[in-house]
Amino acid sequence: MSSTLGERFRIMTFGESHGTGIGVVIDGCPPGLRIQLPNIQSFLDRRRPGQSAITTSRGEADLVEVLSGLSGEITIGSPIALMIRNADARSADYKQMETVFRPSHADFTTVAKYGVREAAGGGRSSARETIGRVAAAAVAQALCQELCPGIEALAWVDRVQDIQGVVDPLTVSAAAIESNVVRCPDQEVAALMESRILQAKAAGDSLGGSVCLVLRGVPAGLGEPVFDKFEATLAAALMSLPASKSFEIGSGVAGTYLKGSEHNDAFEMENGAVRTRTNNSGGVQGGITNGMPVLAKVGFKPVSTIFIEQETVTADHKTVRFAPKGGRHDPCVLPRAVPMVEAMAWLVLADHMLRQRALTGSCGPVRS
Amino acid sequence: MSSTLGERFRIMTFGESHGTGIGVVIDGCPPGLRIQLPNIQSFLDRRRPGQSAITTSRGEADLVEVLSGLSGEITIGSPIALMIRNADARSADYKQMETVFRPSHADFTTVAKYGVREAAGGGRSSARETIGRVAAAAVAQALCQELCPGIEALAWVDRVQDIQGVVDPLTVSAAAIESNVVRCPDQEVAALMESRILQAKAAGDSLGGSVCLVLRGVPAGLGEPVFDKFEATLAAALMSLPASKSFEIGSGVAGTYLKGSEHNDAFEMENGAVRTRTNNSGGVQGGITNGMPVLAKVGFKPVSTIFIEQETVTADHKTVRFAPKGGRHDPCVLPRAVPMVEAMAWLVLADHMLRQRALTGSCGPVRS
Amino acid sequence: MSSTLGERFRIMTFGESHGTGIGVVIDGCPPGLRIQLPNIQSFLDRRRPGQSAITTSRGEADLVEVLSGLSGEITIGSPIALMIRNADARSADYKQMETVFRPSHADFTTVAKYGVREAAGGGRSSARETIGRVAAAAVAQALCQELCPGIEALAWVDRVQDIQGVVDPLTVSAAAIESNVVRCPDQEVAALMESRILQAKAAGDSLGGSVCLVLRGVPAGLGEPVFDKFEATLAAALMSLPASKSFEIGSGVAGTYLKGSEHNDAFEMENGAVRTRTNNSGGVQGGITNGMPVLAKVGFKPVSTIFIEQETVTADHKTVRFAPKGGRHDPCVLPRAVPMVEAMAWLVLADHMLRQRALTGSCGPVRS
Amino acid sequence: MSSTLGERFRIMTFGESHGTGIGVVIDGCPPGLRIQLPNIQSFLDRRRPGQSAITTSRGEADLVEVLSGLSGEITIGSPIALMIRNADARSADYKQMETVFRPSHADFTTVAKYGVREAAGGGRSSARETIGRVAAAAVAQALCQELCPGIEALAWVDRVQDIQGVVDPLTVSAAAIESNVVRCPDQEVAALMESRILQAKAAGDSLGGSVCLVLRGVPAGLGEPVFDKFEATLAAALMSLPASKSFEIGSGVAGTYLKGSEHNDAFEMENGAVRTRTNNSGGVQGGITNGMPVLAKVGFKPVSTIFIEQETVTADHKTVRFAPKGGRHDPCVLPRAVPMVEAMAWLVLADHMLRQRALTGSCGPVRS
Repeated sequence: MSSTLGERFRIMTFGESHGTGIGVVIDGCPPGLRIQLPNIQSFLDRRRPGQSAITTSRGEADLVEVLSGLSGEITIGSPIALMIRNADARSADYKQMETVFRPSHADFTTVAKYGVREAAGGGRSSARETIGRVAAAAVAQALCQELCPGIEALAWVDRVQDIQGVVDPLTVSAAAIESNVVRCPDQEVAALMESRILQAKAAGDSLGGSVCLVLRGVPAGLGEPVFDKFEATLAAALMSLPASKSFEIGSGVAGTYLKGSEHNDAFEMENGAVRTRTNNSGGVQGGITNGMPVLAKVGFKPVSTIFIEQETVTADHKTVRFAPKGGRHDPCVLPRAVPMVEAMAWLVLADHMLRQRALTGSCGPVRS
Repeated sequence: MSSTLGERFRIMTFGESHGTGIGVVIDGCPPGLRIQLPNIQSFLDRRRPGQSAITTSRGEADLVEVLSGLSGEITIGSPIALMIRNADARSADYKQMETVFRPSHADFTTVAKYGVREAAGGGRSSARETIGRVAAAAVAQALCQELCPGIEALAWVDRVQDIQGVVDPLTVSAAAIESNVVRCPDQEVAALMESRILQAKAAGDSLGGSVCLVLRGVPAGLGEPVFDKFEATLAAALMSLPASKSFEIGSGVAGTYLKGSEHNDAFEMENGAVRTRTNNSGGVQGGITNGMPVLAKVGFKPVSTIFIEQETVTADHKTVRFAPKGGRHDPCVLPRAVPMVEAMAWLVLADHMLRQRALTGSCGPVRS
Repeated sequence: MSSTLGERFRIMTFGESHGTGIGVVIDGCPPGLRIQLPNIQSFLDRRRPGQSAITTSRGEADLVEVLSGLSGEITIGSPIALMIRNADARSADYKQMETVFRPSHADFTTVAKYGVREAAGGGRSSARETIGRVAAAAVAQALCQELCPGIEALAWVDRVQDIQGVVDPLTVSAAAIESNVVRCPDQEVAALMESRILQAKAAGDSLGGSVCLVLRGVPAGLGEPVFDKFEATLAAALMSLPASKSFEIGSGVAGTYLKGSEHNDAFEMENGAVRTRTNNSGGVQGGITNGMPVLAKVGFKPVSTIFIEQETVTADHKTVRFAPKGGRHDPCVLPRAVPMVEAMAWLVLADHMLRQRALTGSCGPVRS
Repeated sequence: MSSTLGERFRIMTFGESHGTGIGVVIDGCPPGLRIQLPNIQSFLDRRRPGQSAITTSRGEADLVEVLSGLSGEITIGSPIALMIRNADARSADYKQMETVFRPSHADFTTVAKYGVREAAGGGRSSARETIGRVAAAAVAQALCQELCPGIEALAWVDRVQDIQGVVDPLTVSAAAIESNVVRCPDQEVAALMESRILQAKAAGDSLGGSVCLVLRGVPAGLGEPVFDKFEATLAAALMSLPASKSFEIGSGVAGTYLKGSEHNDAFEMENGAVRTRTNNSGGVQGGITNGMPVLAKVGFKPVSTIFIEQETVTADHKTVRFAPKGGRHDPCVLPRAVPMVEAMAWLVLADHMLRQRALTGSCGPVRS
């Protein structure tokens, strides 16, 4: 369905960018799990706009309210509804956009699909919609860590335009990622990225790039061998993020230039356990996790909202020149995409873990 | 579910590589549609091994049998079951593999997930599983063309290792794609690709590369604004193909190097209709098709089966050196991936069309 | 899923009886539909406790708040979230129940399933949970009436204990149903029912009975021939209401005493249309509606909460005698079950209509 | 979907009554389960026509063929496809029916829904469609008994027309049920039922009645508190059987005549375990099993095919008198409905068990 994700850990999100608020209901979350509100809030705070000079200045506190599903801090098996009210909804800023189809936005397609359009802030197509996902991901993370202690999902900015960081996915830490506003743990490169983003901002332009994701401590056996391959569901989840343009698993595009003899990951024994010497597979073989770190990459386009005048047409088919007067937007979506990428990973992991538990009674490998 | 795809045009595939056969059941196909057996067969023939010197020599006729759902050539609204019997199942060839975890295959992960393993031919992880998808896609195509006359899905080999073709997605034709065994419509480049593949084959090695996909004549309004974005469902479908490593929509990875002012697709009027001047969006904006051609690209790794000795371990954790003695495999999956990519596109299109028809009563745009 | 209903018109409900509130999110509702808040409110008001001396005195206003999905009064295709805050949550009343397994309540099974228990008011097992369904049903009704003008769903109290009304399903009106507090349109019998209920209330006891349902103006062709037969999905929806014990379609149990020659509904022509002379089928043949009125009946047990002392056990396995001190409960669930039965019917109808529209492009019969 | 049932143990059935055959694919069945072909066959043999003078004489062997999913007798986690070819497909018998809408059959509604009609034998509306369900149920049973040793599902004929048996659901055995052709374990009453059925057969008429179902050894905790209550999913499954008219859980219709003080099931301790003194709840409280036997009843109408001339209309709206010349039909569906009722119960149980295992890691109660 349009706003429903997951088979066993299922979420339904709701809310428009400039309406009452944004929310999510989680159906299927196991009981007895401790969910700490500050933890949900810290997920949201990382996603929140206005964190630095390189993100949009929309000043939302984005405070989460628990509407149902917890008894104190404990899940009780009933749906968990979370809501974040919109505080800073300046619809007036968006008046201008009501009749203009902004280039590369969802304005035209929304009218084509629905016949109607919530002009203010793009309705469901706004990045603000991801709040519901991120809130739900805090619950998904708690579930995953309960089922599989030590499991981690970490994302970071890999590249801004053509400025590329060098980061080791096996050792990168949350602290290193959060140590600068760009969320690139390669500190020197991060500084270059930041000034490039500020440059773009000053020019009223925007930049794209890529975000890397590593999942560490994932048990072997997650994912399905045919349609719901681990990487297929991860791809769908990540390609559902606004502005995403590409998805890569393991060696990704680079791996397609190699020969089989170069690309194959030899199995070897280490401390009595099977592992692979290299990890071109990115932790997934035949759609199923193999216990090695899952490695993925997502490309994001330069955000569509720029403050340079562009040609476009209106809903009544008039050709116009257009530049937004107000509205608040990131010149580069990547730093704020980092927590969104992690959020989608937690949601995918939680669902696969419960599916595997239905199948075999445990989230871990049956044999290895 | 593991082997179920789609919400309204739903398929469930079954069958192992070396069992009785491979099949598919389609639930939700509208009645009154003409399905011609030779058409299903020609879908399967394109996917079939043994078509040329550059594909596996497994000599299956892959004849489709209709088990249910048609009255003559007409769909009657009940599930359509299609089956293709395995004719050339030389399990003996696979004896050797029973205890070895072949590098970068699904052997290890299958055991981890299920505790049991169908050694022969990889069971559900074999590319032979895609037969069911391709057969179902013939029905999906018939549905899409009935609902939206003139709609086309065309895929071709874009790149083999580092040999890249030059093809115009707006004008490429099925005939051009089928005019050589590589399925690259750039004839000169195709010849280079072919000799590179034969070279790899001679060396017992394998090659990867990429396949491009264009969907022409897609109505505006397909896809959902949040999780089931058109590109997200397409990504999941294509990343569920064996050996796929990357997915790109529109400008893809290259687009993430551009500025917003370079990347945005200006809207303009043409013959009274709204269109975009460029198509970096790849026909999808905010997850919803905009009526422009949908452009996507899928990367495929070099196939894992190579005839060069490799190090690996066995199920009982012994280190061994391994090279397959028998078995029949493509040195390069790309030519046969072409019909698979088209097949997944038809399945995704058919499902989105029926979903849009549920929502608005028609598969076309509500307004434009 | 636990709290999810429907394939195309899908709802997810949330909220516990004595938490923040009760709500629902609707995913898949078509755009362009007019939803009037007073209409949702009037659905809720009919379900609301405290309407008369024969219902619970819990004095909730049950005011609906629209959290998302409407632009003014018009649906925009995005999820519609509705919430009703709990105003009168006297948890103290329920202290006593924390450790007692109340006979025939969900206390014991909730602990068995989840290991934890929201004592206050029964959590998700409270009849208060149905608020979300009823609110969503107001939207479903608007959709059904837009797609099929003149369609009606009417329920009424058919029987209280052994007091049976006589009502013609072809002519019964909403006004007649609402003309007395029992919601039995047979006025004389309604008076008897009312005094019987008051008698039970005075004795601290409770009563059961049955509710009849008629759907008029339903187009032929809704429902599926195998698992999702119209009556099967209706049965599931109605048997998911608290306290329901039986479901009958058409002639129901009585029809199973007849011979085929007595039970078969002869087809005949009337004004150029095919109809049946009798309607033992209850408007459904082979799982698909035939255009005649759909007739169903639901039996409800006497509510479990009584004010007479009963034997039971506690969570720590002590035998005790128990009678609730506080809490507010209906001596007879039937009058308030009437709007719940109608609500479930609208939800089932809306989903089947959208499913049929996906299949054939229209909610009406393809041929007749 | 039309022909899909279940969330985790999911089946898709296919096949028309007089086509190639009838089949089913099971997606989601856990690996490592022993499935014995003779066991599937014995499920089918009980459902098979031609077992005695009181059932249809259609002489099908109904031999099951395993198309996929087993390695020897062991499930391997991939979809299990089972098929039963139609051997005795005398389409000629059905020529006459091609244009007539048989009273109370699905002929008219099939045309209304699909615009096309498989005349022969009713297509998907034939009782023959249930073969797929029964075959799948043999697998579901094996799963349930593996997860919960000793669990039983037993159904029997409770009543034919007004002849009612007396059977104790706590002690009834499969042997007693199978000891006569009527499948009523009350031997004396069974003889009366048999002669009543033969009488109806001689008169070319048909009879209805009811089937009782008991599930013994069901763990507490199965089912969901809101929409997917155990009894709601069981109701949907049983109301999806051809000719079913009513569903009752526990005390059923009779229970709705009682007062709460008479109907409530007092909890008590027995050998350290909580149980209920009476079982009016039928083993389900608040939609969740409580560990007591699950008791249900299904009413079946007299089958629509009778050999007495009836009035009806044709597809081109002509009024005609109609009596089938050929075709083979049961004068009373009840004896053959018994294995169908058990089959649906196993399918529902298997799905709920896997769902509960996803939620809590085990199919049994978390606490009790």
